[in-house]
Amino acid sequence: MINKLVEKIQKTEAPIVVGLDPMLTYIPEHIKEKVFAEYGETLEGAAEAVWLFNKEIVDHVYDLIPAVKPQIAMYEQFGVPGLVAFKKTVDYCKSKDLVVIGDIKRGDIGSTSAAYAIGHLGRVQVGSKEYVPFDEDFATVNPYLGSDGVNPFIKVCQEEKKGIFVLVKTSNPSSGEFQDRRIGERPLYEYVGEKVDEWGRQCMGENYSYVGAVVGATYPEVGKVMRKMMPKAYILVPGYGAQGGQGRDLVHFFNEDGLGAIVNSSRGIIAAYKQDAYSRFGAEHFGEASRAAVEAMKEDIQNALRHK
Amino acid sequence: MINKLVEKIQKTEAPIVVGLDPMLTYIPEHIKEKVFAEYGETLEGAAEAVWLFNKEIVDHVYDLIPAVKPQIAMYEQFGVPGLVAFKKTVDYCKSKDLVVIGDIKRGDIGSTSAAYAIGHLGRVQVGSKEYVPFDEDFATVNPYLGSDGVNPFIKVCQEEKKGIFVLVKTSNPSSGEFQDRRIGERPLYEYVGEKVDEWGRQCMGENYSYVGAVVGATYPEVGKVMRKMMPKAYILVPGYGAQGGQGRDLVHFFNEDGLGAIVNSSRGIIAAYKQDAYSRFGAEHFGEASRAAVEAMKEDIQNALRHK
Repeated sequence: MINKLVEKIQKTEAPIVVGLDPMLTYIPEHIKEKVFAEYGETLEGAAEAVWLFNKEIVDHVYDLIPAVKPQIAMYEQFGVPGLVAFKKTVDYCKSKDLVVIGDIKRGDIGSTSAAYAIGHLGRVQVGSKEYVPFDEDFATVNPYLGSDGVNPFIKVCQEEKKGIFVLVKTSNPSSGEFQDRRIGERPLYEYVGEKVDEWGRQCMGENYSYVGAVVGATYPEVGKVMRKMMPKAYILVPGYGAQGGQGRDLVHFFNEDGLGAIVNSSRGIIAAYKQDAYSRFGAEHFGEASRAAVEAMKEDIQNALRHK
Repeated sequence: MINKLVEKIQKTEAPIVVGLDPMLTYIPEHIKEKVFAEYGETLEGAAEAVWLFNKEIVDHVYDLIPAVKPQIAMYEQFGVPGLVAFKKTVDYCKSKDLVVIGDIKRGDIGSTSAAYAIGHLGRVQVGSKEYVPFDEDFATVNPYLGSDGVNPFIKVCQEEKKGIFVLVKTSNPSSGEFQDRRIGERPLYEYVGEKVDEWGRQCMGENYSYVGAVVGATYPEVGKVMRKMMPKAYILVPGYGAQGGQGRDLVHFFNEDGLGAIVNSSRGIIAAYKQDAYSRFGAEHFGEASRAAVEAMKEDIQNALRHK
């Protein structure tokens, strides 16, 4: 799957992943009115609104981008119906040949991580039958529990040719609270990065590993260091746009081959129609606003890479 | 909710939480045969088997214990139908007046953690209506992202009088890989424990805080240190039984008042009928085996506390 991701990035010339993290406040009134008329103001209604919103955006951007990243929390907040919408979104994006990164940030002791890995990337056995429960292509993984918690994901990645992105340095303001703590001369996230490199060498695709890392766009200097420390890891870079990261901050996350990083934008794309820059499209045409925002983001990143 | 947990622990004299972490291999054949005949070997069938298995155990132990801890990964591995079984289990346990600790180990950047907190402990707004999606009483939280990722849970705890247990030192063999890294003189988990104490003082119940901690039974010496460092935090102690922790290891996790810790056992209780000690009950009467295992665990812990 890492090979497919790399190929799609090369083909689209867009190292971009669109974060499908829908809040109800992002969803235009005309969608909410329609679904609430049918389902009432229910969890099922909210989930249907989320799904219709996602579908419209995907229909407008799928040919421009290699991948999407649905954030499962935004679905889980609507309970079981929300997770039905998550699964529909995953399946629909795959039908559009998009690589799907499940932003699930799971991680637990070994037997429990194995269940998460099976549920999201693998197959579960029920009697004599096998099922693929959520069936994302990649998942994000929290490393706090150490190798025990990550290895079951790696095992499933090896079997299924799928991938993970391990949290190394997250984009949020307080990420330094524990991740930056100095152990001797070096911060904790470097130790995590070292492990990512080690884990990754156990399951290599053509040029990059199935095991990638998350490093926030908001910490470009960290990106520079981690890029060198994990040369074979694809870096998933959140924090572009709404969280403050800009194109020129991103160059450090890429390798000399122009590859090695994929930049996420969520709100900046999916709620583009709410920004002044795209308000001309209006709420009715929010999908077109998202398309324009993807094109601008692609331009911004390509520009930055050209002037690297 | 922390007050209710403490009261129930005092009333049952059992600082015990039963981990409802069903694997299909734990579920007796007669249940699987019955559900597969009705649902086929499907995800729905697996989920129904899990639910019937849980219900039988809960019916046999609910009067002996204060709380249960369903591990959501074991449900998530069966996709959406598995999460339906998770929700049914939560609701049923609450109807039996058990405190429900959702072992979800979530944690993300602020806005995303807020969605998890709402989905599991709080209420979500849909138009003019409010819903309680999963509605556990407590949730476990991963601290790797720092305060940003924990504060949204604390906010919901304050509003809803619910609680969290933050991972400090987990029970698994490789937990030391990052958690034990020395920052100056002290390991990382102590810095996390210090934050737990600080976060906890923002939302106190009567004698204990809504913010507790997870410290594994497999590291009793750590328990001793963390007990002193977080005097107001309830400690959720996994790793008893199948993972190797024993009654005498547990005394360090309790305060002088005989409170302050609640010990989890999963496999040792729910799959008790598979152990030699309880095989006399047979698979048909697995619920009775679980009851006997709870009684033995209660005896083991009470003994250890008496000889503290």
